[in-house]
Order: sequence, then C-alpha cells, then structure tokens
Amino acid sequence: MTANVYCALVHHPVLGREGEVLTTAVTNMDVHDIARSARTFGLRGYFVVTPVTAQRDLVHRILDHWRTGPGGRRIPARAEALALVETSPSLDAAIDAVTRMEGTAPRTVVTAARAGAGSRTVSFARLRTIIATTDVPTLLVFGTGHGLADSVLESASLRLEPIVGRSPWNHLSVRAAAAIVFDRLLAPPSIDAPPDAW
Amino acid sequence: MTANVYCALVHHPVLGREGEVLTTAVTNMDVHDIARSARTFGLRGYFVVTPVTAQRDLVHRILDHWRTGPGGRRIPARAEALALVETSPSLDAAIDAVTRMEGTAPRTVVTAARAGAGSRTVSFARLRTIIATTDVPTLLVFGTGHGLADSVLESASLRLEPIVGRSPWNHLSVRAAAAIVFDRLLAPPSIDAPPDAW
Repeated sequence: MTANVYCALVHHPVLGREGEVLTTAVTNMDVHDIARSARTFGLRGYFVVTPVTAQRDLVHRILDHWRTGPGGRRIPARAEALALVETSPSLDAAIDAVTRMEGTAPRTVVTAARAGAGSRTVSFARLRTIIATTDVPTLLVFGTGHGLADSVLESASLRLEPIVGRSPWNHLSVRAAAAIVFDRLLAPPSIDAPPDAW
Repeated sequence: MTANVYCALVHHPVLGREGEVLTTAVTNMDVHDIARSARTFGLRGYFVVTPVTAQRDLVHRILDHWRTGPGGRRIPARAEALALVETSPSLDAAIDAVTRMEGTAPRTVVTAARAGAGSRTVSFARLRTIIATTDVPTLLVFGTGHGLADSVLESASLRLEPIVGRSPWNHLSVRAAAAIVFDRLLAPPSIDAPPDAW
C-alpha cells in the first residue's frame, strides 16, 4: 500500500561547510539507499534534483543498470526500489511532476538538522496525522552537503521538526535521516504501541 | 547522555545471495553512516567485525584519517562519531570487549529482515523498555550481505522483530536499518507521542 508521499534529494541550492550556497555531486549510495527506504515505506516517487545535466545523465545510467540491465537481473528487488527514482533539474520541476501525477500540487515539507524559528514547523506526530487524513500529496525535501539553502527552507509549506537523539550532536547522514523520517511518518503502528505513536 | 548500548556490524559469518555463508568486504559508507547514527542516539561503541586482518587494517586507516588526520580537522563532528568505532575479529571478541568495558556480559540482540520462529523474538517496544530499565548492556548485531548466518541468529540472547514498512518488500540497506533501530529504541519520547511510543 503506497502513501501519497514523495521525496526529493536536493543537490542545489544547498549549503557548504562555510554556509556558502553550492551544488553537490550525486552520490551513488544516496540513490540506492533512499530508494530502498522509500520502497519499504510505500512512497510513490523519489526525485534526485540537480541542475547539472551530466549528473542527471549519471543517475540515468545507474538506473538503467539496475532497472533493465545486469544489476536488476542479479538483484531483482533492487530494480523494484530504483523504479521509484526520477531526476529533476530543480525542486520546482519535481513539484510540477508530482502535480501532474496526482492532479494536485503537493505540500512541500523541508527537513533540516536545525530547528527553524517560524510557525511553519510541524512535529512528526502532526505530519503523520496530516498525511494519513488528507488527500493532498506530500513532498518531503532533503538536502545534501550541509543542508538546504535558506531559499528552499523559506519557500516550503512546512518545516519538519529536526530528528533529536540523545545529545545536541546532529550530524546524521542524509541516508539515515531519510530512513528515520519515513519510518516515523509512515510505518504501520507497532502492535505494542498506541495507535497514535509517532 | 549515552545509553548502555553497543552495536556490531558483522562481515562474517553472513549469507550470500544463494544462502551460502561468506565473508563480505567492509564498506567505507557503513563505517561512517552507522557511526554517525550511533553518535546521534548515544550508543557507547560500534564494532566493525571481520576476521580479515587486512580489512581491519583498512578500517583503522579510515579511522586515523578522520580521528587524528586531515579529515577530522576538516570536519570535527565526524571525528566525534568515528571515535565510537572499534574493530573486532569476531562477534565473540566484540562481546568480550563490551564485557571488559561494562563489567557485565551484554545481552546480544540480533536483527534480521525476516521474522524468526523462536520464542526469543522481542518487539521494539519491549526491547526499548528492557534497555531503559535494566543495567545489563545491550549489543545490537547487524549483518551485511544477505544477513546474519543462522549460527549467529541462534546464539543470540534475543532476536529483534523485523522492521516492517507498508508492504512485504524488506530490502532496506543495513545503514538505513541501523538508523531506524537506534531511533525506535533510543530516541527521546516525542512531545506529541505517549511516553511509551517507540
């Protein structure tokens, strides 16, 4: 059973180590790991967002290998996961693609390791309820590098509360963060846990 | 605040695609991602388990680069995460190391994508409670390749229930699975969720 949820991994505009805005390179492991997590939790699509044509071409070569080439013949389950992946030259193009597929523009929900100051911050529990009870598609937006640029954070419908562990240290990989976000928002309720647990 | 919890990533004995027992190669990304997730959720240590001396040497070179070398100077937060990593030639050696550090042998909890038949299966909610309320250390054991060999599954104290998404498809990366397991067992309770939610 899929959920009316998509995700995007943004390679531009994102922050560098000094806070500068830059474009990161696509990482093979990001394509695979986030596709596998998306497939597990029933997302309908995963957009790898980069304005660099050569980088989108690289992703398409990875996808071809695993969807119709020797990789997929060797590991068919991987082909199923990578079937969810598309490339987009920009986040706006990914939003347009979801709008075309679903007939409605998605709410965009940005993720960040730091809490935002604005009133658009949404908790995991609240977003889980919103997803489960409304028909509007949701596009979860993840950043590479040192996180999404302010322009992306500010233009979103909602900002998801950060994942907080047992200390202020907040340097999860984007692959781990995406897995935890999908699990918290979309996993079936645990038999042992109350139904409205995250 | 750390938890009395450790993890081990096992490269032998694990299963291959055809169910054969083999030794996998260490993946650089596994060392980094799982260390970062472990640091976030307050684990006390992360053992990379392989019987191959050259592979353990490789891990030590990675660790040196990031703990005391140029990597750590460039990204100090990464050095903090990789400070948790040790290598062990076998799972038994990792168990011995925890026993030496904590003064008590740990309960070993194996993870697998498939449910086990035995009575030693423990739910996430139950293990979360066990960890929070007992003094015995816990060693969470993850497999590479196609999962832990039966000999490892059978010798453990407990077997954690599988992560179930929204379909029977169960091919998360071990990096994603570890992140979700740490989060479910060790994240502080959500403000919005009841205190005994995952």
